[in-house]
Amino acid sequence: VKERQHFLDLFFNPKSIAVVGASTNSSKMNYNLFANLVKLEFPGRIYPINPHAEEILGRKAYPDLKSIEDEVELVVSAVPARATLNVIKDCVAKRVKGIVIVTGGFSEIGEEGRKIQAEVAQLLRESGIRAVGPNALSPINTSNNLVIGFSLRERLKRGGLSLIFQSGLYEAVVNDLCLSKVIDLGNKMNINEVDVLEYFAEDPDTKVIAIHLESIAGDGRKFLQLLKETSKEKPIVVIKSGRTPAGARAASSHTGAIAKGRDVVLDVGLRQAGVIRAHSVEEFFDFAKAFDFLLPLKLDGNRVAVASFSGGEGTIVVDLCQEKGLSLAEVNPETSQKLQKVSPPWGVSANPFDLGVCMQFHPMGEVYKVFLDSMINDENVDCIAFPIGGIPMPEEILELMLMARERKKPVVLWLMEEMRLMTRVQEDGATIQRLESNHIPVYPSSERAIKALSAWHWYNLSQKVL
Amino acid sequence: VKERQHFLDLFFNPKSIAVVGASTNSSKMNYNLFANLVKLEFPGRIYPINPHAEEILGRKAYPDLKSIEDEVELVVSAVPARATLNVIKDCVAKRVKGIVIVTGGFSEIGEEGRKIQAEVAQLLRESGIRAVGPNALSPINTSNNLVIGFSLRERLKRGGLSLIFQSGLYEAVVNDLCLSKVIDLGNKMNINEVDVLEYFAEDPDTKVIAIHLESIAGDGRKFLQLLKETSKEKPIVVIKSGRTPAGARAASSHTGAIAKGRDVVLDVGLRQAGVIRAHSVEEFFDFAKAFDFLLPLKLDGNRVAVASFSGGEGTIVVDLCQEKGLSLAEVNPETSQKLQKVSPPWGVSANPFDLGVCMQFHPMGEVYKVFLDSMINDENVDCIAFPIGGIPMPEEILELMLMARERKKPVVLWLMEEMRLMTRVQEDGATIQRLESNHIPVYPSSERAIKALSAWHWYNLSQKVL
Repeated sequence: VKERQHFLDLFFNPKSIAVVGASTNSSKMNYNLFANLVKLEFPGRIYPINPHAEEILGRKAYPDLKSIEDEVELVVSAVPARATLNVIKDCVAKRVKGIVIVTGGFSEIGEEGRKIQAEVAQLLRESGIRAVGPNALSPINTSNNLVIGFSLRERLKRGGLSLIFQSGLYEAVVNDLCLSKVIDLGNKMNINEVDVLEYFAEDPDTKVIAIHLESIAGDGRKFLQLLKETSKEKPIVVIKSGRTPAGARAASSHTGAIAKGRDVVLDVGLRQAGVIRAHSVEEFFDFAKAFDFLLPLKLDGNRVAVASFSGGEGTIVVDLCQEKGLSLAEVNPETSQKLQKVSPPWGVSANPFDLGVCMQFHPMGEVYKVFLDSMINDENVDCIAFPIGGIPMPEEILELMLMARERKKPVVLWLMEEMRLMTRVQEDGATIQRLESNHIPVYPSSERAIKALSAWHWYNLSQKVL
Repeated sequence: VKERQHFLDLFFNPKSIAVVGASTNSSKMNYNLFANLVKLEFPGRIYPINPHAEEILGRKAYPDLKSIEDEVELVVSAVPARATLNVIKDCVAKRVKGIVIVTGGFSEIGEEGRKIQAEVAQLLRESGIRAVGPNALSPINTSNNLVIGFSLRERLKRGGLSLIFQSGLYEAVVNDLCLSKVIDLGNKMNINEVDVLEYFAEDPDTKVIAIHLESIAGDGRKFLQLLKETSKEKPIVVIKSGRTPAGARAASSHTGAIAKGRDVVLDVGLRQAGVIRAHSVEEFFDFAKAFDFLLPLKLDGNRVAVASFSGGEGTIVVDLCQEKGLSLAEVNPETSQKLQKVSPPWGVSANPFDLGVCMQFHPMGEVYKVFLDSMINDENVDCIAFPIGGIPMPEEILELMLMARERKKPVVLWLMEEMRLMTRVQEDGATIQRLESNHIPVYPSSERAIKALSAWHWYNLSQKVL
C-alpha cells in the first residue's frame, strides 16, 4: 500500500466513506449528503449509517460504524452536536483515520457549544484522528467525483482551481467553476488553512488556490510565509471577511472565529507574499478564473488593446484600465491602417476601437477578425480586452483568440447579462462554454473583465519586481 | 394649439417625424431607425425619406423633405456628415422645428469633421432650429412609443427613470429598465445637458434622472447649480467618463469632448449638489433602479437587517454594509425569540440571519415569513437586505415585502446569476418581473444590492443634513 504524502490526502482520496446520519427522506439535506456519492459514482466504498433504515438508494444501511465489516477510512458526521461525541468514540474504536463534522452547533453558538467542541477536540487529540470542521461542508474532489454537499449535484467541471473556504458559501457558484478540490474548514478545530495550503502547494492537480477565511490561525506568520512560497508557483487569491468590527462579530457567530490583529496587517502581509486580495465575492471568483485561464504576461506587459460596442463604453473602459494599473497600448501605424479598412468612411480611433460604429458599415465577423489580427501582430500590445455579443461565435474568431493566447497576449471578454441570458436560452450557454473550455474567460461586464485582467497583471509583476 | 413649455418637448412629443436616410434593406441599421416607429406604433405622422424607394414598410417614401405636403416637426438625419448640410438647408426651407443628427463623422474625427460641424452649427444658429447631436442616437419616450435606435425594439417597460447620455451605450441595457425618456447628446453641438436637465426637472413623468457625460458644458457651474436644485425633488445619479488622462483622450475621439478642469472639482461639486456619482456602468444602472423603486428612508435610517444563504455570505455582507455607511441593526429581544422558532436546535444569530442553516430544519417559506415579519415589526430596523433563490416566490412572502415597503423600510434583494438564469429559462424571468413591477429591486449579487441601498441612504441623508 502506497503511503500518503500528506494526511489531508485521506480527505480527498478516501478508499471508503461512511455517512453517519444519512437520511432516507429525499427532501432532507442529509439525504443529499449520501445521494451525491451514489449518483456521481464515487469509486470508493460507501456506507450509509442510519439505525432506522434497511437501505438507502439501494445501498445497505448500517445502524452504526462498528456494524460495518470492512475498514472505513473517512467518516462524514451529520448528527447533532451533542451526538457527535459518540460518533468520535465509535470512530476511535473502528480505527477510522479522518472525520468531517458537517453539523453546526459548536463554538459558533456560544458557551454551550464551545464546551462540546472542546470535548470533541480532546478526544481527537488523544486518538490522533484528524477532523475537518465542525460546521463544515467538505470536501470536493472532481478527479474522483467526491462531493460532500447539501445540494444534489451534476458532475462538476474539472480544472486547476482549488478552494479553501470557511463557509458553505462556495455552494452557490460551484457549478460555474472548473475545479480541482474544495475544502470548507468551518470552525477549524483540528485542521486549518496552513494544513490545507501545505497540501495544495504539493498537489499536482492544483494550479491556482483561492482562499476564503473568517479568521487566521495562530499568529498568521506561518500562513503568510507559506503563502509567499506557494504563490511563486501557484497564483493565490484571498478574501478575508470579518474585516470590519461588525463583520468580525458576525464571523464569530458563524464559525466562532475570533478576530485578532488589525486588518491592515493582513493587507501588508498579503502584498508582501505576492497574493491578491479580493474585496467581494464577485472579485474573488473573477480573479480565480483569470488566474486559472490566463497565461503569464511578460514583465511590464500592461499595454491593453480595448474594443467596445460604443464609444461611451470605450471611454469608461479606458478610465478603468488607467485606474487599475493597465495602460492603453499606443498601437503602431500599420495597425491603425488595417483598422481603417473596417471603419466607417470617416475613420475611427484604433485604441479604444469602436466595434459598434464599424459594424454599421461592415460585417461583424470581418470587424472582429481585423481587430484581433492586427492587435495580435502589434508588438506594442500586451493584452486584449473586448465585448462579445452575437452568437454563435465564428470559428475563425475563436482561432484568433487562441492564437493571441499562445503568443502570451491574454484575452479577456465580456458578454453583457442580457446577451448572456440569450445564449443560455438559445443554445444552453454553448458559446460561453466553448470559449471557457479553451481558457478564454468571459465576464458579465467590462468592469469585471478589466479588474480580473488587472489582478493578473499585478500577480505577474509581483513575481518579478522583488 | 397648446404651446410647448420647453423647446425640448418637441423632441419627445413630436406630432410628425421624417427619417432622412431611411433604408429599404432590413439588414441595415438605418432600416431599424424607421422600422421602430412603424412597429412600435408611434402615434404621430411618420415619413421615410429615400430618393431610391417607393415605399418602406408600407409607408410612402419621399425623395426629399420638400416633397412632403404636411408640416414636419422633427427630422431624424442619418445621412453622411457632408450630406447633413443639405438636410439642414431643406429643414430650414420646410420650417422644421427640430433635428436629431444621428450620424457620426463630425468633431470627434478631427479637423475635417470639426469644419463640417462648425458649418452645421452656423446654419442652425441662423435659422433658430434646435438640434440634438451630431453622433447621437436619440430620443426615446416610452409614453408615446417613440424610439429612435439602431436595434429593433419590443415595447419598452415604462417607469420614472429618464436618462441623459453622451453615447449609445444605454442601448445594451434599455430592455431591462423601466424608463420614461432617454436622450443621447452626442457631440453636444447645439443642445447640452443643461437644456435637458431643465426639461427633465419639470417633466412630470420623470422621477429619477441618470446622467452619463464625457464632458461638461461651459464652466459647469450652471450645471452643478441646476443639479443641486433638481436633486431636491428628483434623485440624480451621474457617471462621468474621461476621468483619467487616457480616458479623456478616448472621449475626445468619441464625442469630440475636451476634458477641462480637474476631475476632483466635479467630485466636490456633485457631493455639494446632493448627487450620487457612479464609477462603473453597473453602479450607474443599479443606483438608478434603487432611486426609482425605493421609498424614502427616515433620517439616519441606516440600520439594516441582513439575511444570507450561508454564514460566510452574511459576514461578507456585514463588512460591506459597514464600509458603505450602513450599520447592522441591533434587533430587539422579541425578534431574536421569533427567529429561534425557525432556527436549528442550537439557535442562530438574529442579524445577520442565516437562512440556509434554518432551511435545513424548517420549510423555506416559513423561514422567510418569520424573518420578514419580525424585521418589519422591529423598530430598530430601517431597511432589509436578503437573497432569494427558489422560484416561484410564495405570494405571502411578496406581500410581506410590500408591507415593508409601505412602512418605509426599503427591501433590496439579490438573486445569484445561476438562479437568475434558471428563472429566465424556466419561467421567462417571471419572478424577477413580478418583484420589480412591485418596485422591489433584485440585483445579481449581494455586493450590488448593498451598494445600491447605500447610495439610496446617502441620497436621503444628503437631502436632510444641510
